[in-house]
Amino acid sequence: MTLILALDFGGTKLAAAIANLDSREWLRYERHFSPVNADANTDLKIMRSLIHSLIQGVTPSAIGVSFGGPVDAITGKVRLSHHVAGWENIPLKDLLEQEFSIPTVVDNDANIAALGEYRFGAGQGHDSLFYITISTGVGGGWILNGKPWRGAAGMAGEIGHTVVDPCGPVCLCGKRGCVERLASGPYMAKDAREFLLNESDKIEANQGQILRSLVNNNLDLITGKVVSEAASQRDELALNILYKSAWALGVGIGNVANLINPQQFVLGGSVTKAGKNWWSVVQKTARETALPEVNFEIIPAMLGDDAPLWGAVALAESVL
Amino acid sequence: MTLILALDFGGTKLAAAIANLDSREWLRYERHFSPVNADANTDLKIMRSLIHSLIQGVTPSAIGVSFGGPVDAITGKVRLSHHVAGWENIPLKDLLEQEFSIPTVVDNDANIAALGEYRFGAGQGHDSLFYITISTGVGGGWILNGKPWRGAAGMAGEIGHTVVDPCGPVCLCGKRGCVERLASGPYMAKDAREFLLNESDKIEANQGQILRSLVNNNLDLITGKVVSEAASQRDELALNILYKSAWALGVGIGNVANLINPQQFVLGGSVTKAGKNWWSVVQKTARETALPEVNFEIIPAMLGDDAPLWGAVALAESVL
Repeated sequence: MTLILALDFGGTKLAAAIANLDSREWLRYERHFSPVNADANTDLKIMRSLIHSLIQGVTPSAIGVSFGGPVDAITGKVRLSHHVAGWENIPLKDLLEQEFSIPTVVDNDANIAALGEYRFGAGQGHDSLFYITISTGVGGGWILNGKPWRGAAGMAGEIGHTVVDPCGPVCLCGKRGCVERLASGPYMAKDAREFLLNESDKIEANQGQILRSLVNNNLDLITGKVVSEAASQRDELALNILYKSAWALGVGIGNVANLINPQQFVLGGSVTKAGKNWWSVVQKTARETALPEVNFEIIPAMLGDDAPLWGAVALAESVL
Repeated sequence: MTLILALDFGGTKLAAAIANLDSREWLRYERHFSPVNADANTDLKIMRSLIHSLIQGVTPSAIGVSFGGPVDAITGKVRLSHHVAGWENIPLKDLLEQEFSIPTVVDNDANIAALGEYRFGAGQGHDSLFYITISTGVGGGWILNGKPWRGAAGMAGEIGHTVVDPCGPVCLCGKRGCVERLASGPYMAKDAREFLLNESDKIEANQGQILRSLVNNNLDLITGKVVSEAASQRDELALNILYKSAWALGVGIGNVANLINPQQFVLGGSVTKAGKNWWSVVQKTARETALPEVNFEIIPAMLGDDAPLWGAVALAESVL
């Protein structure tokens, strides 16, 4: 029996679990939301207590760690977190190895989720795949030749910041028409909100009325999920915004297919729950964007919220 | 002394050469233009005679072959040529191995040129690079982890058919605003020609006058090279078209950098001779399109017209 300790430092929650390498079920599992004003120290303190409660009486052979932000996977050093303060240049691998005397590997959540889906989820048997998460942001992780491809400096996978519409709206990154600017949940919500605020005089029947009623006219309550819900009720504004999201992702995927020709795209994250219509626009646009000879399939991720933990198990195999 | 026979089946010419594996100079070199109405049979016949004249008195240890069209690199079977008829499903590797009893490897010209630049040219020492040729078309070849990455079905590298401007003009592939539609030589020439034909009433001073004079008002003579020349003489129309070419390629490169994070981009092909201004727009646009943390360099190819032959030498090493 080879036990693996899997850790997930997410932006808003911390999770830890232990599994036998040959099992697809957790032996033990602990989870804790980050407190308000969390920083690297509080995150580490909470994670320590989760670990100590998990490893009572057992000795894991390796620790695999998913971190929600840029990481140097070779040194196991965190570069920073976009959500939690104080994570700049923290040598997470070294800290854990010193404290628990167990070989440890660290990678960012998109690479880890890609590895998890490849080993245990939707991507099994596909030696080249691109995992994309479409949620608060849009990011991705590569499996090429059956191994993670992280890029020359660990920056590969940023499909969210590829440009698909140079005349589109401005993204936080400064460019116009990035996939993330059009496809992510918060930006869909923002576009809906701003349209309703600024162009209410131009609004025709069915444009935003359902959306308004879903949030009782409190536009601050609009989220990506609310936009999806309004679209499913045929709100024209929501349908347009959701179409643009799926279209942008589809162009991005088609471009990636032409560039790298992976067998498979695995899509996870909250926006992928937007319904059949969103999926069919993604599929159709990707198919039209890729050359006719370039084949691929686009399928939903299978591991859900546990993808980083299962990916961490898969990553830990590499140090056994 | 290990001799390699390198063959290049181009769209308009055939070349063959022999080199010692440790040398960077050809021992013997033969070249022949394809006849008008060339087909696969005439190409093979000419190549056979080049080979026989080259290998008199010597026995190469391996044959490396560059083919100007899609190839299944595993079986060495040509899928087709976009330029020469009759190449559909020709088992080129098997034909050559049967005839010459020498181990043979075949790959398409973009993959081979990438390998050539990596082993012997501009890309030496860079284990992840993307080679792009910008000429009649726009294509590319990958080196990842020091090896060619061809994609799940050998279709990787098609940066020419990634979309950078969905409102742009229609490409032969059916999509709008592909990199090839904006950046390749023939399309630059076409855009110049059509502007001069259709919008001559709107033309202001310096818009196309130099271009017209360079071809003595015979617009059919405009080529990508003529557009570059007119731009270097400050013709405003030519400057705009050349800017758009460099911009489209720069967006494409920046997108690739975000997706794959290679160390280096190596650019070859006739359009890269367009001058400093073209290069600086490519560099600037790629830099702006990539995320600030994503670093790379963009440099000119070194091997010129011999890139496919040197790449074929590098490829042949794999069967020694």
